[in-house]
Amino acid sequence: MALIEAVPNVSEGRRAPVIQALAAAVRGQPGVTLLDVSSDAAHNRTVFTLVGPPNELHSALLSLYAVAIEAIDLRSHTGEHPRIGAVDVVPLVPLTVADMGVCVSAATALAQAVAARFDIPVYMYGRAARVPERERLELVRRGEFEGLASKMSEHSWRPDFGPHRPHPSAGASAIGARKILIAFNVNLRTADLGIARQIARLIRASSGGLPAVKAIGVRTENREIVQVSINLVDHETTALHTVFAAVEDEARRRGVVVEGSEIVGLAPAVALLSTAAHCLGLRDVTMDQVLDCRLPR
Amino acid sequence: MALIEAVPNVSEGRRAPVIQALAAAVRGQPGVTLLDVSSDAAHNRTVFTLVGPPNELHSALLSLYAVAIEAIDLRSHTGEHPRIGAVDVVPLVPLTVADMGVCVSAATALAQAVAARFDIPVYMYGRAARVPERERLELVRRGEFEGLASKMSEHSWRPDFGPHRPHPSAGASAIGARKILIAFNVNLRTADLGIARQIARLIRASSGGLPAVKAIGVRTENREIVQVSINLVDHETTALHTVFAAVEDEARRRGVVVEGSEIVGLAPAVALLSTAAHCLGLRDVTMDQVLDCRLPR
Repeated sequence: MALIEAVPNVSEGRRAPVIQALAAAVRGQPGVTLLDVSSDAAHNRTVFTLVGPPNELHSALLSLYAVAIEAIDLRSHTGEHPRIGAVDVVPLVPLTVADMGVCVSAATALAQAVAARFDIPVYMYGRAARVPERERLELVRRGEFEGLASKMSEHSWRPDFGPHRPHPSAGASAIGARKILIAFNVNLRTADLGIARQIARLIRASSGGLPAVKAIGVRTENREIVQVSINLVDHETTALHTVFAAVEDEARRRGVVVEGSEIVGLAPAVALLSTAAHCLGLRDVTMDQVLDCRLPR
Repeated sequence: MALIEAVPNVSEGRRAPVIQALAAAVRGQPGVTLLDVSSDAAHNRTVFTLVGPPNELHSALLSLYAVAIEAIDLRSHTGEHPRIGAVDVVPLVPLTVADMGVCVSAATALAQAVAARFDIPVYMYGRAARVPERERLELVRRGEFEGLASKMSEHSWRPDFGPHRPHPSAGASAIGARKILIAFNVNLRTADLGIARQIARLIRASSGGLPAVKAIGVRTENREIVQVSINLVDHETTALHTVFAAVEDEARRRGVVVEGSEIVGLAPAVALLSTAAHCLGLRDVTMDQVLDCRLPR
């Protein structure tokens, strides 16, 4: 059975009843499993991880859009994380059997349905981008919700589907296809946001840092702690432990203590195995040696 | 369904046709899955990992004994690893649903059957030990095959089942129940076996080192490399990365380079996750965040 993972990022990380209603919308769809809900109050954002076959996933995501558009108004939304819409971004990721082509098709079908049903402009990004400049999500999101109306008046930012202006309260939505991404945040014990931003700039691919790494510096709920918020878009190109070591190293140079880190949502076992192997000097360890993955069910 | 893991250690790590025949004996049993076969020529020993429900596992193990006893003669067996018999030791480990009690019962049933069918003395060890001194496998194995006849003439070393003398070619067998164990070897770039033995002594629990760690120093196939061969009997008590760091530290003090390490057979995902978490400064990461473990099948 072809399985796709969808990781909708919704611009609500504070109001528990709304987050619960969003989760319920997904759970209501037979054949779809909601694997994880990660909310961040400082980001004011929730990341849902769901898996299912393409058609069932499509229905679950439309239900999620319906609840989000009803409940969220970007005009009064504040939060640390850049966003352009109520359902800010929906990446589709190929898992078992499914390949990237299946995800690009599913992303296109979802984009059309969202635009038609909710009158929302949709940008296709990542491997589903139809214009090269939209491949990078951060460019799609540049200017955020507040800058959307003026950005969309430019011809080059006409959406791939839907109206040529933002939805008044729900903004726009980015729908795309990509490989598995690991959302990995490293906390630094300092109130100086500049340090997190500096380190993010040094390690990210776009400014000549580590390949496959995207990073920004953000505040956290704790005023004494700032965060390097990282998206590792290809853990086979750059390993998790390489990213962590780079942040740790730059923090040390600045006399700042690493306060701990977190994985938001899920990470593939092989990325964690590769980090464990690095830490243990293991040669030739494979997923076949992980007992839990081998048990008959 | 109650699942038990069995990890028979057989005293043959060199003759491929014998190893294949042993594997075939296990594979011939419906309901049992052979997860891993790890042979080591220097140890002259093969570790099989199989899982299944208690009854099916019982039959598969008896078939394995039959092939081993037919093919292996301890009188001409040499190897780095201590051993008392052709099927040297068979631990049973509780997995899903099964608890330690199920494994102790299964170990007892297997011991009775092996003694009756093959006329081999069997010692019960670990959680299935019937005499406190036999809880520790290394004491059961002390003196090895070569010292078995004289050891068995002592009243205190009468076996739990079977004849009061070694089987002429197959020796004796230890059958027991225990928690999941991780077999972890660290290689050192030196020809000096004394250094591996020294480090093994320093880190093992029995001489005041790390709790839950058993370790010996052994030679490898490569004369320039010796090995600290470790059994971690409770990875929740002492983490894999703690063991590795201890060996690395002791090696560094002696000016010896750690050449890499290996996991023999399988390791539970949670032990590897905990090492990855340590390496990444992760707080609160759980198995629920490992994507592969969450996918519907």
